[in-house]
Amino acid sequence: MGTRKVVVIGGVAAGMSAASQAKRRQPELEVIVFEEGETISYGACGMPYNIGDPERDIDDLIVLTPEQAAGRGIDLRTGHRVTGLDPASGKVHGVNLTERREFEESFDTLILATGARARRLELPGFGLPGVFRLRKLEHGRQIKAFIDEQRPKEVVLLGAGYLAMELSHMMRELGLEVTIVKKRPVILRGWSAPTVDLVVEELDRHGVTIRTGLEERGAVADADGRVEALETDQGRIPCQMILQAIGIEPRVDLAAEAGLRIGNTGAIWVDRTLETSAEGIRAAGDCAETYHAVLEDNAWAPLGTTANRQGRIAGANAAGLNLTFDGTAGTSGFKAFDLEISRTGINAETAEQRGWAPVSVTISQQSRAHAFPGSAPVHVTMIGDRDTGRFLGAEIVGREDAAMRINVLAAALRGRMTIEDIRGMDLVYSPPLAPVWDPILIAANQLIKKVRSPT
Amino acid sequence: MGTRKVVVIGGVAAGMSAASQAKRRQPELEVIVFEEGETISYGACGMPYNIGDPERDIDDLIVLTPEQAAGRGIDLRTGHRVTGLDPASGKVHGVNLTERREFEESFDTLILATGARARRLELPGFGLPGVFRLRKLEHGRQIKAFIDEQRPKEVVLLGAGYLAMELSHMMRELGLEVTIVKKRPVILRGWSAPTVDLVVEELDRHGVTIRTGLEERGAVADADGRVEALETDQGRIPCQMILQAIGIEPRVDLAAEAGLRIGNTGAIWVDRTLETSAEGIRAAGDCAETYHAVLEDNAWAPLGTTANRQGRIAGANAAGLNLTFDGTAGTSGFKAFDLEISRTGINAETAEQRGWAPVSVTISQQSRAHAFPGSAPVHVTMIGDRDTGRFLGAEIVGREDAAMRINVLAAALRGRMTIEDIRGMDLVYSPPLAPVWDPILIAANQLIKKVRSPT
Repeated sequence: MGTRKVVVIGGVAAGMSAASQAKRRQPELEVIVFEEGETISYGACGMPYNIGDPERDIDDLIVLTPEQAAGRGIDLRTGHRVTGLDPASGKVHGVNLTERREFEESFDTLILATGARARRLELPGFGLPGVFRLRKLEHGRQIKAFIDEQRPKEVVLLGAGYLAMELSHMMRELGLEVTIVKKRPVILRGWSAPTVDLVVEELDRHGVTIRTGLEERGAVADADGRVEALETDQGRIPCQMILQAIGIEPRVDLAAEAGLRIGNTGAIWVDRTLETSAEGIRAAGDCAETYHAVLEDNAWAPLGTTANRQGRIAGANAAGLNLTFDGTAGTSGFKAFDLEISRTGINAETAEQRGWAPVSVTISQQSRAHAFPGSAPVHVTMIGDRDTGRFLGAEIVGREDAAMRINVLAAALRGRMTIEDIRGMDLVYSPPLAPVWDPILIAANQLIKKVRSPT
Repeated sequence: MGTRKVVVIGGVAAGMSAASQAKRRQPELEVIVFEEGETISYGACGMPYNIGDPERDIDDLIVLTPEQAAGRGIDLRTGHRVTGLDPASGKVHGVNLTERREFEESFDTLILATGARARRLELPGFGLPGVFRLRKLEHGRQIKAFIDEQRPKEVVLLGAGYLAMELSHMMRELGLEVTIVKKRPVILRGWSAPTVDLVVEELDRHGVTIRTGLEERGAVADADGRVEALETDQGRIPCQMILQAIGIEPRVDLAAEAGLRIGNTGAIWVDRTLETSAEGIRAAGDCAETYHAVLEDNAWAPLGTTANRQGRIAGANAAGLNLTFDGTAGTSGFKAFDLEISRTGINAETAEQRGWAPVSVTISQQSRAHAFPGSAPVHVTMIGDRDTGRFLGAEIVGREDAAMRINVLAAALRGRMTIEDIRGMDLVYSPPLAPVWDPILIAANQLIKKVRSPT
């Protein structure tokens, strides 16, 4: 074993998973984590919900404190920004932000877990205190404090992905008027039309205004320097707070400057052991690509699950193992008001691009047995390949048990199942829990009719 | 096509599924259904819940009326009890209960869907009006009427299977004192100890008394002939109503007398096309055996899902197709108060009997993300084969999303997956919906350590 010292850059989900796993697998290893912030290992995906609940402290989201990390034998160095990486000599260097001095550290093996950054617009007034983006715990803390102190009445949300949906929900919970502003009339890009329709209807039902086709120009401040409107090409929209949820991008600067291969997706290329193009250097989490089990190719899937799973593999392999990452199946989900929205696999557009002949159905079926009180419709969109009958992906939306049902289809992807395989699943039935023909079975039964030589 | 006339015996779940499917597949077929009762196609599994809700009419449970069946072109003959079957001549005979006369009918192909009957004890006083069992819609109607009119305060439940659990729950909802009486100290036979402990704790929390080790001797009536106690070998237990939930047995008399093969389970033997030992005669539903995909052998799985799925296959095959039943995976679930209890596959005892080397774990994990409000523990017991790593079965219990999670593992059984396969599943994560490491993944991750040469 030549490995004595593992250096991890980044101390949130992937980084701390990797560090913990490396130390657990090989306790004699020296494991150093450089994290530029002061907090590590927090549940970033929980931030919208925490922001929506004034009773909760933002620090509730911290899974592991620096002290707990130290207790695991990890040499955690917060306030350390790594600014350079030399694969040939096995060294990193950077700045100790607390002591304002430079540092250098050698490594036998390195794990890049630099994450992603939230995009932001460079527009006039977007440096004002009422304009936010949400990525780090500090952003969440600032937003909570601003709402608590400034009591904004109206908020404009830029963006229409799942984060914007979650934030709309939470801002309404807090009693704010919410306007989503978006230039292109596309809500939830990449999701199917039936799903988008259901979400838009849900936003509408809860008083969220969606304005598409107009472009933001900047933030307008009042005499006290407080945001009072969003300036657009079609006039002003009054608001005291602007939240940018316009997407994220992988932080690859360090890797790119060191000459590591950047994949087509823009994230750091890795093989299935999470090794980058440089031997002994691995990458995990939002900064890295991930193997996609349906595409059988690298993809970029910046999600908490992928980050944690990749971190574990990268950490174990840094400790001398040779594990392979099973990959993502594209499973994700979120909640918007009372609606659960979830998906797995690939959509019809991607399927077509990759040479499949996608066929799909959308069905609606009650969540519980015939005539059982409390039942709610579950909407399933299911996609398969016409020629082989293979199941390719699905979206499930509903007020009850939508997200849990997507996992059944994630399991089907794991098993490379056909629609026929899904139709033959023995799923649970009990009147208060599920109908005798589960929505998944109904969808499979419809979709199989569109597959060649169905039975 | 020699088949012109299909006769179906039994008009509830399997029978009506079969009749509808045969007619849909081959509309020119003559399809006759003999049903001894007056109602057809009702959701028997919903009866406990309907009984527990005075606002609901028992007829809510009817999925298809005789008129709707006629509309599908089915020649439905209610009030007809079939008493004899002659495979050689292709004839059935019986009694028209309404007109009190005998009838005879020929068939080209026959489907037996005679269901199961609820066991009952032949004890003194068990013929009194306050003593019930629950199987048919009429039983449900009688129980509802009795509760409404007699307002019993105390009920004794005989039996401790899932029906007894559901009825305990519903009787408590109606405000009755509930005592479960059972000779052998076994609650939920066939379920694992951790599951049983959780259910017993839940019953206890909701004021249900469980008394084991005493034997029922009969019902004691007051001067007006109303039940006032259950007599046992250890004294009387005051009650105004006695519910027998001591199990069911397949109704195979007709098949047995006609010389059809009865399987080891006591139910009618069928092959995977649902054909019995007599050519052209099929059986489906609670009267029949079913292929068990984990055992790779016939089993008896009298459940609503199996009945509906078998009915469809039997009906399609009666209409000239040659479909194979994918079989059951042993998936089932029920609710007891706030607890969802579910399982799939086989338990450790059965696994051992069948030559596997079962290893198992039980873990508890929150249903939602770290620190997310409303989270509740999900308890997973997972069983695998030590030598091959194959996943064999699981039980999931919890207040939230327990039953939906079992379907993920039912899917795993469908794909004959290993524990390693399960560990690599890409399951959904979103703070209000699920934790980043789903309880299923945690269980698989623990169990894999007990499998030979884990990684």
